[in-house]
Amino acid sequence: MARRQMKLGVSMIGLGYHMAAWRHPDVDPAGNMKLSHYVDVTRIAQRGKLDLVFLADGVGIRAQDEPKGALARSSKNVVFEPLTLLSALAMVSEHVGLVATASTTYNEPYHVARKFASLDHISGGRAGWNVVSSFTDTEARNFGFEKAPDYDRRYDRAGEFVEVVRGLWESWEDDAFIRDKASGINYDESKLHVLNHKGEHFRVAGPLNVARTPQGHPVIFQAGASDAGRELAAATADGLYAASQELSAAQAYYSDVKGRMARYGREPEHLKIMPGVLAVPGRTRQEAQDKHEQVQSLLDPLLGLNQLSRVMGDLSAYDVDGPVPDSIDPRMRSRAQIFLDLAKRDNLTIRQLYTLVAAGNGHRTVVGTPADIADAMQEWFERGAADGYNILPPWLPGGLADVVDMVVPELQRRGLFRTEYEGTTLRENLGVPYPTHRRAALARGLAAE
Amino acid sequence: MARRQMKLGVSMIGLGYHMAAWRHPDVDPAGNMKLSHYVDVTRIAQRGKLDLVFLADGVGIRAQDEPKGALARSSKNVVFEPLTLLSALAMVSEHVGLVATASTTYNEPYHVARKFASLDHISGGRAGWNVVSSFTDTEARNFGFEKAPDYDRRYDRAGEFVEVVRGLWESWEDDAFIRDKASGINYDESKLHVLNHKGEHFRVAGPLNVARTPQGHPVIFQAGASDAGRELAAATADGLYAASQELSAAQAYYSDVKGRMARYGREPEHLKIMPGVLAVPGRTRQEAQDKHEQVQSLLDPLLGLNQLSRVMGDLSAYDVDGPVPDSIDPRMRSRAQIFLDLAKRDNLTIRQLYTLVAAGNGHRTVVGTPADIADAMQEWFERGAADGYNILPPWLPGGLADVVDMVVPELQRRGLFRTEYEGTTLRENLGVPYPTHRRAALARGLAAE
Repeated sequence: MARRQMKLGVSMIGLGYHMAAWRHPDVDPAGNMKLSHYVDVTRIAQRGKLDLVFLADGVGIRAQDEPKGALARSSKNVVFEPLTLLSALAMVSEHVGLVATASTTYNEPYHVARKFASLDHISGGRAGWNVVSSFTDTEARNFGFEKAPDYDRRYDRAGEFVEVVRGLWESWEDDAFIRDKASGINYDESKLHVLNHKGEHFRVAGPLNVARTPQGHPVIFQAGASDAGRELAAATADGLYAASQELSAAQAYYSDVKGRMARYGREPEHLKIMPGVLAVPGRTRQEAQDKHEQVQSLLDPLLGLNQLSRVMGDLSAYDVDGPVPDSIDPRMRSRAQIFLDLAKRDNLTIRQLYTLVAAGNGHRTVVGTPADIADAMQEWFERGAADGYNILPPWLPGGLADVVDMVVPELQRRGLFRTEYEGTTLRENLGVPYPTHRRAALARGLAAE
Repeated sequence: MARRQMKLGVSMIGLGYHMAAWRHPDVDPAGNMKLSHYVDVTRIAQRGKLDLVFLADGVGIRAQDEPKGALARSSKNVVFEPLTLLSALAMVSEHVGLVATASTTYNEPYHVARKFASLDHISGGRAGWNVVSSFTDTEARNFGFEKAPDYDRRYDRAGEFVEVVRGLWESWEDDAFIRDKASGINYDESKLHVLNHKGEHFRVAGPLNVARTPQGHPVIFQAGASDAGRELAAATADGLYAASQELSAAQAYYSDVKGRMARYGREPEHLKIMPGVLAVPGRTRQEAQDKHEQVQSLLDPLLGLNQLSRVMGDLSAYDVDGPVPDSIDPRMRSRAQIFLDLAKRDNLTIRQLYTLVAAGNGHRTVVGTPADIADAMQEWFERGAADGYNILPPWLPGGLADVVDMVVPELQRRGLFRTEYEGTTLRENLGVPYPTHRRAALARGLAAE
């Protein structure tokens, strides 16, 4: 049997994951609104045989402007809309998967099902949907609300949303279309399934006006850290983004989520858990350290504080050189806990904390030689903490090119990563199974009784 | 001064405008779900120097299944989602405009503003939005409703929707982004405009998370035939789709809409009225006639009746060989009136009417030599009935290739159509002005007082 290998994606977030990326000397600061920038990143990812490029998303300018003036120092205020961008990138790539976030909070399942199904057809089976809910009030205010819905309501809606989308993706069976010119019959009526979903949040009749897609349906990613998030991932996700700083925490998360899958009749290896890793490789440790310090030195203090506020809540009433308070209202619960743990462990001030997390925003950060980084990735992979990684390049495209040119060859030498794509679809490369058409199976089962 | 020339777009609706297109011997009946089909059509359109390709859209399978079994005989049940498809097509074309319908009835303005702005960036300024409202109950049932909202409510929402989208497109001024690495200032805060729209249908704060686009904002198309539709077009549209069978009706429509523009401070030539024309050219009149009869002969009676029902309402209670009733509840009011006028003029049965309109569905149909078709197009263009045309090829891509290879050269010989693209954006080719940033102008005006 072939050796188990890592799955690798890259977060293609504007000019890079680091808040100061746009000020990096190698970065075109206008690149976040240039198609050519994303084309470059996608081609580098494919050159490195990566499984996928990933576009995070918010339906609005998500950062709170705390402290005042921080927003004007960020390059993350304008971007392309993910589904349009990935459709364009499908035309300049052949193998790499194309995954985007779409929120369940202010969208309609019919629109989301349609767009990702369409992308799957356009890309020949390379589409993936990262299911999220929207937690910022700035996003709520773009859709008629003053505040984001509370956590339970958001997750309840998200769960039903995913069910409706999966149902719509089963509108047509794989071989529904006969297209017989002689008889004039275009499709077999027994292979069209009308959803007629009636739930607490949605009533959606269907059918979807897109044929079954090359992957059966697009791959589903999630990023659930909470209990409800883990359960939803165990039930429905093919891939899972995660954030941990420590091996033990990552192992606990990994085994907990995998352990939940049996109750949904799923095999543990059919969900790929891919924690984020901010990797800064250098030919020597010193070179890597210098690179990291260079981008850190470009961090505007207002932006550092802003990033922390976005996770932990408004910090403007606190002294930045005083201790990190734990009484504020966190906007991203699990991430805030990671930050608080770090602050307590090393007794950090607010300023020290935001400087520490500026690069990875709570994700694991690894700075070193290709061997150092490969070691770090191998350890978690072999010790039950990861099936692969979501690579977070601090700046783009250079930060990704460094990983592809230095770290990927080292992983390949160790047999930990592919040297050629295994399949033609994202699903085949990730090694997650083609989905059963549940409603067809149900209909056949009933007919057989 | 240069001679006034026609603007030409093509309706890239699946396998063609004719309900029987998929059965045509030259048509790949699986092409409606193949990217290569749309790539071919787009490249042919660009070879013909056409202004744009246009994707009509419905958020569901729009046809009613009346009579029973009709849907299974139609190829129009599955298609790509327009914004993803046009984004892909942007990558295999350089000049032709990319216009898609997006409904205002079950969408959010923030999503629509974002996607079209993103497409405008991706395509280097070739995006257009055709604003419609959704009138079928089958679409309503995909979004939690039993029935479509009534006409007045739909149009009221559409008007406010367009205002919100235009407002969001003015979030950032053209030169808002400084991107000064040294100071760390990314944008000029005085050039960001927060919308804070609070209306009857929408509350949308903004700003949009996409920069001002190459065209200022995407070109706006509409298809208003009713009084409210004409008024909305006069106020906000750059292009207007229309359906008329007769010169006199087209002239009346043209002069009415253009006459309404003055009250919005707009020049008549800044709105291009483009009626649909189903053109079937042949090297001889006989050849053209034979082509037309061939596709007509492939029409399934169930589909013909279905198309009529979709416009006029459920006809299943009536004898298809009896007179066309005028008491039923029309689904598309203005189009139904065109059908009733045709039926009365020639005393047609239901069967005769649906056969007559099968090809053009109420649009003008012209069958003949390239000179015949150019004559027909020239007449309306010069007699105050059209600024150009939305070409409706009965089948694709062959029906478009015929127009591009036979009719376009004839129009060019007459000086009625371009031989090279005038500009790089759709807006420049259409000859409609770059939009003023109204909110910046207002802010500057206030500052000057």
